[in-house]
Amino acid sequence: MNLDLTREVPKIDWGPYLANRTEQMKSSTIRELLKLTQQPDIISFAGGLPAPEFFPLREVEEACRYVVQSEGTVALQYSPTEGYRPLREFLARTMHKYGIPAVPENVLLTSGSQQALDLIGKILINEGDYVITSRPTYLGAIQAWNSYGARYHTVNLDDGGMVVDEIEHAYEKVLEDSKRPPKFIYVLPNFHNPAGTTLSLERRKKLVEVTGRLNLPIIEDDPYGQLRFEGEDIPPICTFAPERTIYLSTFSKTLTPGLRLGWIVCPEALMRRIVMAKQGADLHTGTFVQYVANDICQRGFLRPHVERLRQVYRERRDIMLDAMEEFWPVEQCRWTHPLGGLFLWAQVPEVINTTDFLQKALVEKVAYVPGSSFYPNADGGFDAMRLNFSFCPPEAIVEGTRRLGIALKKELGMV
Amino acid sequence: MNLDLTREVPKIDWGPYLANRTEQMKSSTIRELLKLTQQPDIISFAGGLPAPEFFPLREVEEACRYVVQSEGTVALQYSPTEGYRPLREFLARTMHKYGIPAVPENVLLTSGSQQALDLIGKILINEGDYVITSRPTYLGAIQAWNSYGARYHTVNLDDGGMVVDEIEHAYEKVLEDSKRPPKFIYVLPNFHNPAGTTLSLERRKKLVEVTGRLNLPIIEDDPYGQLRFEGEDIPPICTFAPERTIYLSTFSKTLTPGLRLGWIVCPEALMRRIVMAKQGADLHTGTFVQYVANDICQRGFLRPHVERLRQVYRERRDIMLDAMEEFWPVEQCRWTHPLGGLFLWAQVPEVINTTDFLQKALVEKVAYVPGSSFYPNADGGFDAMRLNFSFCPPEAIVEGTRRLGIALKKELGMV
Repeated sequence: MNLDLTREVPKIDWGPYLANRTEQMKSSTIRELLKLTQQPDIISFAGGLPAPEFFPLREVEEACRYVVQSEGTVALQYSPTEGYRPLREFLARTMHKYGIPAVPENVLLTSGSQQALDLIGKILINEGDYVITSRPTYLGAIQAWNSYGARYHTVNLDDGGMVVDEIEHAYEKVLEDSKRPPKFIYVLPNFHNPAGTTLSLERRKKLVEVTGRLNLPIIEDDPYGQLRFEGEDIPPICTFAPERTIYLSTFSKTLTPGLRLGWIVCPEALMRRIVMAKQGADLHTGTFVQYVANDICQRGFLRPHVERLRQVYRERRDIMLDAMEEFWPVEQCRWTHPLGGLFLWAQVPEVINTTDFLQKALVEKVAYVPGSSFYPNADGGFDAMRLNFSFCPPEAIVEGTRRLGIALKKELGMV
Repeated sequence: MNLDLTREVPKIDWGPYLANRTEQMKSSTIRELLKLTQQPDIISFAGGLPAPEFFPLREVEEACRYVVQSEGTVALQYSPTEGYRPLREFLARTMHKYGIPAVPENVLLTSGSQQALDLIGKILINEGDYVITSRPTYLGAIQAWNSYGARYHTVNLDDGGMVVDEIEHAYEKVLEDSKRPPKFIYVLPNFHNPAGTTLSLERRKKLVEVTGRLNLPIIEDDPYGQLRFEGEDIPPICTFAPERTIYLSTFSKTLTPGLRLGWIVCPEALMRRIVMAKQGADLHTGTFVQYVANDICQRGFLRPHVERLRQVYRERRDIMLDAMEEFWPVEQCRWTHPLGGLFLWAQVPEVINTTDFLQKALVEKVAYVPGSSFYPNADGGFDAMRLNFSFCPPEAIVEGTRRLGIALKKELGMV
């Protein structure tokens, strides 16, 4: 395009006008990387994107047509902040089957799960409040809560997920350091992003027991819970402490991310506060996309679709794991074997700094997210990387994993 | 629906966990009213809803089909925080024609204009910072900025819009009271919500001159600019000070509100900060609705559609004004004659408190928004009301205005 700019716009320094909280805001490494990795010759394991070739295009098109034709004048109008009532009912019913004692009044639709994290920060976090979370943890949460001046105390994570035995000590440490208790604990129980681990039933119960004793609210972030490849579903933490848990999930991984639809399940007393915060943030989530998602859900399409996604992603996980066994320096590395979700977490020898090494990987035309991005206090993950296995087709997974394996071997002087 | 809740969920007191900022959050009177006024027998002038019978249903349906069929795998995927590039280009071009020297890099898509207000608060407002605005002013802005601890210093508004001669005094008063300058001035130049007034070219230039001297940034909120019924367009304030102005607009009033699509035009230096804030807030605005809006825009549909809306809303404004002349106690009341937009502002005799009077109006099955809702310091508007003329069909406008006139006359002992 050719814009005829007839005059120069002067530049001013906006520094003096910026709010202090902007100092804590950082651009997401992942999102900046996504730009880089959009070059078509790079095989990217960096994003957290679902496989677009399995988007239910026909169903979305049909739902759009049905919604516009039958309810267009309401589906395109302003709507209540809480969300579209039939969709809230559907979600309450689904949550209930999943073990969460929710009624529609406990459910609020959000503009993706990211907005749920932002709203939680807005109503709960005062400048300097501590949040307890695992190391590593989901960086979108860190990004949301940094705006509100959160600080983080981390507990370790092993193959069984968050080491819940460390929670009490973490609580005491926060109390000692900041003279106030931590605001809440943030947990990703299923197929952890970035670690790929799952919290066992035993640990969930222990977590509920310990946090109950400490009166510590729980944020349970569960975007991947429905994408289990093997084993039995484990009841969500919210099942055991619904009065103290804010549960989050999303349509991004089961339907499509481009609709931007997530939801919060929370106690009614808190709902009023979240509604007020959301009114100020964006009035309400898009009416149209809620009607479209509702139509797709009510037709019973989601369950068989998710069943298919499970098969697709399980196959891709297996292909990646097999290729790692084949091409990686297996003696020097270790990685998680996720039971579901989109990611696995690989640890390489300490001599390799995965942030520096990314440049070399990009030369080999393959990308990942360096592990240190997921440590809110920047105190770990230097020898780790997050690998996504949902986005690339099978042959690209093999080739990308091979390229990464060769780059690692080169770096270690093995080839 | 019948949820089998097999056990009682205990309730806990969330009070001790809430962030201090929640004390400043209030639920929007308008949005609470919207619930009340959804009873089918009430004629509501309370909302700010566009006329749903003129939503471009066929065009939305066609755009949805085209987008899903031709670009579904990208249109339903995650996408860049800044927004969909072709839509940013379209908007930059449109803004440029409108007098704003924008390039695509100056444009960011938001989840409605409300999110733009929230993001501005997030990057600019520190606890206790003052914002200068008119009295009355748009309450969505107040709601957004209260979360960040804003305070407000108001200047008067008359039939010619904000009284710009008062700005310098307001600036000095803020400096004196808070020992720091106000953060920015918030202006609604076209068909003000709630007042219906328009800022003259002379006042716009004066505003730019004064704020330039004071180095005061300008937030120019222009959701209705395209809905002018009569007279010539006046160049936006941003035309005269693009380096210092953040300009906001939206598709809500021209296309439909249910897509939740607005945009910000701002200097590039600030864009980076807004992008970071938006990443934390909701990652990005819905990909799908951006593609749909872009398709409708690129086909050149919007211009003739807006032309039609202008005619519809002008007619409705005239019908309301005529009905007020006919049924209202004209000697005792006065009201604005907006040149565009969705609202007019009526002042009734001081003996009538419009908040109390709303109950009586509801008995007569008619609703409006009490004027005091639009005064951020709760220091005025007690004898005023905002009336929306875009939503109701002509016969309902006449009947509702008649009911309100009769209620007013009863209250004044005239019938």
